[in-house]
Amino acid sequence: MSNQKFNVAVVGATGAVGEQILGLLEKRDFPIGKLKLLSSARSAGTVINFKGLDVIVEEATPDSFEGIDIALFSAGGDVSKEFAPHAIRHGAVCIDNTNAYRMDPTTPLVVPEVNAEKINDHVGIIANPNCSTIQMVATLKPLQDAYGIDRIIVSTYQAVSGAGSQAIDELLRQSKAVLDNDHVEPQILPVGSLPVKHQIAFNAIPQIDKFQDNGYTLEEMKMVNETKKIMGDETINVTATCVRIPVVYGHSESVYVELKQDYDLGEVKKLLENSPGITVVDDPSTQSYPLATEAAGKPDVFVGRLRRDLGHQRGLNLWIVSDNLLKGAAWNAVQIAEIIVSKHSERS
Amino acid sequence: MSNQKFNVAVVGATGAVGEQILGLLEKRDFPIGKLKLLSSARSAGTVINFKGLDVIVEEATPDSFEGIDIALFSAGGDVSKEFAPHAIRHGAVCIDNTNAYRMDPTTPLVVPEVNAEKINDHVGIIANPNCSTIQMVATLKPLQDAYGIDRIIVSTYQAVSGAGSQAIDELLRQSKAVLDNDHVEPQILPVGSLPVKHQIAFNAIPQIDKFQDNGYTLEEMKMVNETKKIMGDETINVTATCVRIPVVYGHSESVYVELKQDYDLGEVKKLLENSPGITVVDDPSTQSYPLATEAAGKPDVFVGRLRRDLGHQRGLNLWIVSDNLLKGAAWNAVQIAEIIVSKHSERS
Repeated sequence: MSNQKFNVAVVGATGAVGEQILGLLEKRDFPIGKLKLLSSARSAGTVINFKGLDVIVEEATPDSFEGIDIALFSAGGDVSKEFAPHAIRHGAVCIDNTNAYRMDPTTPLVVPEVNAEKINDHVGIIANPNCSTIQMVATLKPLQDAYGIDRIIVSTYQAVSGAGSQAIDELLRQSKAVLDNDHVEPQILPVGSLPVKHQIAFNAIPQIDKFQDNGYTLEEMKMVNETKKIMGDETINVTATCVRIPVVYGHSESVYVELKQDYDLGEVKKLLENSPGITVVDDPSTQSYPLATEAAGKPDVFVGRLRRDLGHQRGLNLWIVSDNLLKGAAWNAVQIAEIIVSKHSERS
Repeated sequence: MSNQKFNVAVVGATGAVGEQILGLLEKRDFPIGKLKLLSSARSAGTVINFKGLDVIVEEATPDSFEGIDIALFSAGGDVSKEFAPHAIRHGAVCIDNTNAYRMDPTTPLVVPEVNAEKINDHVGIIANPNCSTIQMVATLKPLQDAYGIDRIIVSTYQAVSGAGSQAIDELLRQSKAVLDNDHVEPQILPVGSLPVKHQIAFNAIPQIDKFQDNGYTLEEMKMVNETKKIMGDETINVTATCVRIPVVYGHSESVYVELKQDYDLGEVKKLLENSPGITVVDDPSTQSYPLATEAAGKPDVFVGRLRRDLGHQRGLNLWIVSDNLLKGAAWNAVQIAEIIVSKHSERS
């Protein structure tokens, strides 16, 4: 083991994902030399305790990244686009949790359980995929390897924390208002920057992110395009319906997959049980299946309700749940950072 | 128009669906002669106001149905099995909202927008389909007629009211407990009669009704089998994932349908707009799509998010929402009763 330390910057340190990243860096005892917490001007000055020390959050500037080895971005695509080039210029490797570079052909899009080897190909930035994509591809990768995948039809049940801290506050505030028979005035969801707002408390909103010209939302198109890129197969057909539901932490997904070959259900279960990062929870006799409330706070992806499409021999239904802020964001990013560190240590 | 009146019995008058049936009979000015409200011994004695008159709920007995023309059952399958034969013996036509007779080959399973003509074939009982099935087949019928349907892959987002009044109380009680940081002790959901309970507040539970030997829940198998029977085509492949979410009224469904022929999306929209009982809400530019909170209290089925599977020319995604206690139960039953009355009036 090397004793080498790495200077780390966390951009978006005060956000919902930034908070989880810091918690993981602390818990995993990440070999940090200097830690720099960066944010917008609005949040600068916030004090965050890290391993017993108070760290003051600074406003990100082009020169904030001097001496930084690894920069973790989760402050929105515009911030990544503005500052990642400066971080690279200062010699840092960027792990970007936003949508800014995911589909850029020169940027690896990485879920370590699926395509960790792509990390080596980076030219400064490694992109962290969308939360709803990560948990799905992590689960489907062993099936792709064993049987091949023809198509995926997915419907999501996504937590409000995916839309940030303000959306969490909104769900809780609206829920209380409904219970108290008070007036509900939606302010954030479905999309903060769009004019029309809908109630999320005791509702299901079939819109996550902006609509594209083809009638799909950006979230749905992320699932389509990122899945193909991460799984390294442009021929996989993916169609998605992304829905926000009144859950705080944990995305659930009803995934229908059509394999290229016939499969044995017991074999699929064993494959998943033996896959890193995947926990199978699937026992109808004890009413056991993955639940958002159980997945919250845990790094794993949980899968259950495994069953064959009764009308299609190669069709398989799965219920996939994971904490969208952990494996769906912070944990996947920290996993990538740990792999970078271990590769660096191997070389040194 | 005939002035003929019909003696009506409502079995399960104090339940969530019974209450809606009475509301509709009143609102629709149903030609009622005598109204008999029946229930279990536990709820007998309850007084219900109907059109300004207080009606005392009586315990159902084999002779409760003497002189009754139309009996509407929504008190559970066992009650229907016990009393429907007596109602028939007394000359009544039964409209049964439970699962007791739906798959009985001699019992028509009717959604008026789909197969109203089957009402004529009854031999005493007409079955009202499962709530999640009704809104789906009502929407898909015009597509079946125009293009034919190969397969359906559906994931549901179902309201707790489908599990009765106690489940509504449970969701509201649990939500308050979570907001107050109190202990949550699940008591009803997912299935009242099963030992394991799960939190529904701020969660998504992928179990509605009991598990079958094939790994599917009974709710999922209802969607598979009832759809084939109602649509009159055993070759339609249906696979379903049924999920309870923290919504009080209104089931939402992400439905993927593969048609037998290529289609034009604008034509599909027009077809649905011109279909009885269907309201299209589908305009991305105004963030308009069906929402459970908007559908609650309305009789229609709402459909939107219409879009082609980008990887499959005959694949179509739809988002279908309806009030599970109205079109999904009470309104469909009252529609059937109205058709029976109108046919009777035509003959007399």
